[in-house]
Amino acid sequence: MRIVVLAGGIGGARFLRGLKSAVPDAEITVIGNTGDDIHLFGLKVCPDLDTVMYTLGGGIHEDQGWGRAGETFAVKEELAAYGVGPEWFGLGDRDFATHIVRTQMIGAGYPLSAVTEALCARWQPGVRLLPMSDDRVETHVLIDDPEGAEGTRKAVHFQEYWVRLRASVPAHAIVPVGADQAKPAPGVLEAIAAADVVLFPPSNPVVSVGTILGVPGIREAVAGSSAPVIGLSPIVGGAPVRGMADKVLEAVGVEATAAAVARHYGSGLIDGWLVDSVDADAVDEVEAAGIRCRAVPLMMTDLEATAAMAREALALAEEVRA
Amino acid sequence: MRIVVLAGGIGGARFLRGLKSAVPDAEITVIGNTGDDIHLFGLKVCPDLDTVMYTLGGGIHEDQGWGRAGETFAVKEELAAYGVGPEWFGLGDRDFATHIVRTQMIGAGYPLSAVTEALCARWQPGVRLLPMSDDRVETHVLIDDPEGAEGTRKAVHFQEYWVRLRASVPAHAIVPVGADQAKPAPGVLEAIAAADVVLFPPSNPVVSVGTILGVPGIREAVAGSSAPVIGLSPIVGGAPVRGMADKVLEAVGVEATAAAVARHYGSGLIDGWLVDSVDADAVDEVEAAGIRCRAVPLMMTDLEATAAMAREALALAEEVRA
Repeated sequence: MRIVVLAGGIGGARFLRGLKSAVPDAEITVIGNTGDDIHLFGLKVCPDLDTVMYTLGGGIHEDQGWGRAGETFAVKEELAAYGVGPEWFGLGDRDFATHIVRTQMIGAGYPLSAVTEALCARWQPGVRLLPMSDDRVETHVLIDDPEGAEGTRKAVHFQEYWVRLRASVPAHAIVPVGADQAKPAPGVLEAIAAADVVLFPPSNPVVSVGTILGVPGIREAVAGSSAPVIGLSPIVGGAPVRGMADKVLEAVGVEATAAAVARHYGSGLIDGWLVDSVDADAVDEVEAAGIRCRAVPLMMTDLEATAAMAREALALAEEVRA
Repeated sequence: MRIVVLAGGIGGARFLRGLKSAVPDAEITVIGNTGDDIHLFGLKVCPDLDTVMYTLGGGIHEDQGWGRAGETFAVKEELAAYGVGPEWFGLGDRDFATHIVRTQMIGAGYPLSAVTEALCARWQPGVRLLPMSDDRVETHVLIDDPEGAEGTRKAVHFQEYWVRLRASVPAHAIVPVGADQAKPAPGVLEAIAAADVVLFPPSNPVVSVGTILGVPGIREAVAGSSAPVIGLSPIVGGAPVRGMADKVLEAVGVEATAAAVARHYGSGLIDGWLVDSVDADAVDEVEAAGIRCRAVPLMMTDLEATAAMAREALALAEEVRA
């Protein structure tokens, strides 16, 4: 079975671990969000790709969900001693090595997709990990400018909004800078075309899955796919399971409910939608929108619970196909 | 008193510490060798400049003489796990931060001299540290090619010859690639012109002091200076005090003796020369070459012994001046 998964960071990575456990023989292609990539200290950092790679490759800091296990922070401390920041972005020593290798390869002319493949040669994530695009796409967030006159707004890098500001200020718009000029990375459209199932894990529908779908050609390929497209709600009981998806949903005018996110994707894109058992009353609303819907436990509390979610998604895909 | 010192790495840095102790009120300008700079992992590494900066700034690994105190090697271990080397060059995590800041500033358009000043703003070495040149000069060493046909030679980077091969293969020539096109960094010629004394510490006469002198304009400025130019022999009792200077002296056809190194510099360049007490019988030979010479203890066993060497050098300068 060929499965394509559009993944963001922590939620996507954890779901993928469950999916691998549920269908160990499946051929899984992950299309990773690169809109949250950031250049720090002259290095290209790809947080979402790395979270998937480290999680599936056994190198992740389990409790934290991002970054490396057994991490140290000597480089960061020294950079701070030189007065070089930002200090709010947690780059550890082990993690630095990944960014050094990536930056060096990109400087040598390799596209990000080839770099990602090279990094994965070490981590052996057990999936084919593709960046959504080899072109630079950078998600910016339009916020009120605290230093400007009243009503003045400014765009900040997504990581500044997310990590430094903890999404604590209103986001007026989410702007994927460069997306309109970006091309899907080699293999992306081919993988979607060849897929038996396409899955949207419980990743952020705006700044993770939404950014991937914003690369011209990807949304069309997913919408046009003959394979069932099944999503899992990242919103449970009216709040994000993890992270601050409600904040960016608000920016795009979508209510933070399981049903509203399904309608946001729409029946033109997704065929099936899983909501959490606590949101069982949303099933009818989602089905009324032309999307087959089931209520099942959606908390990724451990590997088995996550594998069960993956099995439910694949079962719904079978149902859609039948 | 304005003192200019042409310095390599460990020997130069330790001598400078003694000099600062001997004449705490002197205005010391250090012209540092950059011929052993190397690009590793996409980062610009300046071993000699950093050794001077760390040593005088209190960050050096004392026993080792290079690199940072309390160093860790997580980044290097991770790079090795990616199969990215070289493994023979010991870049620690703390050290990496220096190279990251430097590389980022150079990428932003700052010349090496401005970058060095910025790094020194943290370390406060108590001297003005100037790279010999803002232009790239890279010392290469011509060795026998172990993989080539008999008699085939190849050029390797100085660090590969020095650190990886431990100077264990014959060096046929020392080639400062780019030196002919290099210009002295801003301030270098001005500092020499304004100097009351110019000192050559017991640094490597070929690949440290020799490389600095090889930047067009610097040798001429030193030779034409009205200030006394005093050198300290890095060769004691027919062998280098530290390092493998004898190997590179052989490559340029100079015997590894205190007197031969003095004659190699020549009376057109240096006015005075200190040899170690064990080489007292070399004094006449050096003086016969038109260079004032004294035999004094030249082992930098501790700060006081090193300060005494500096005082001897300055005393010899006074003698030359008188």
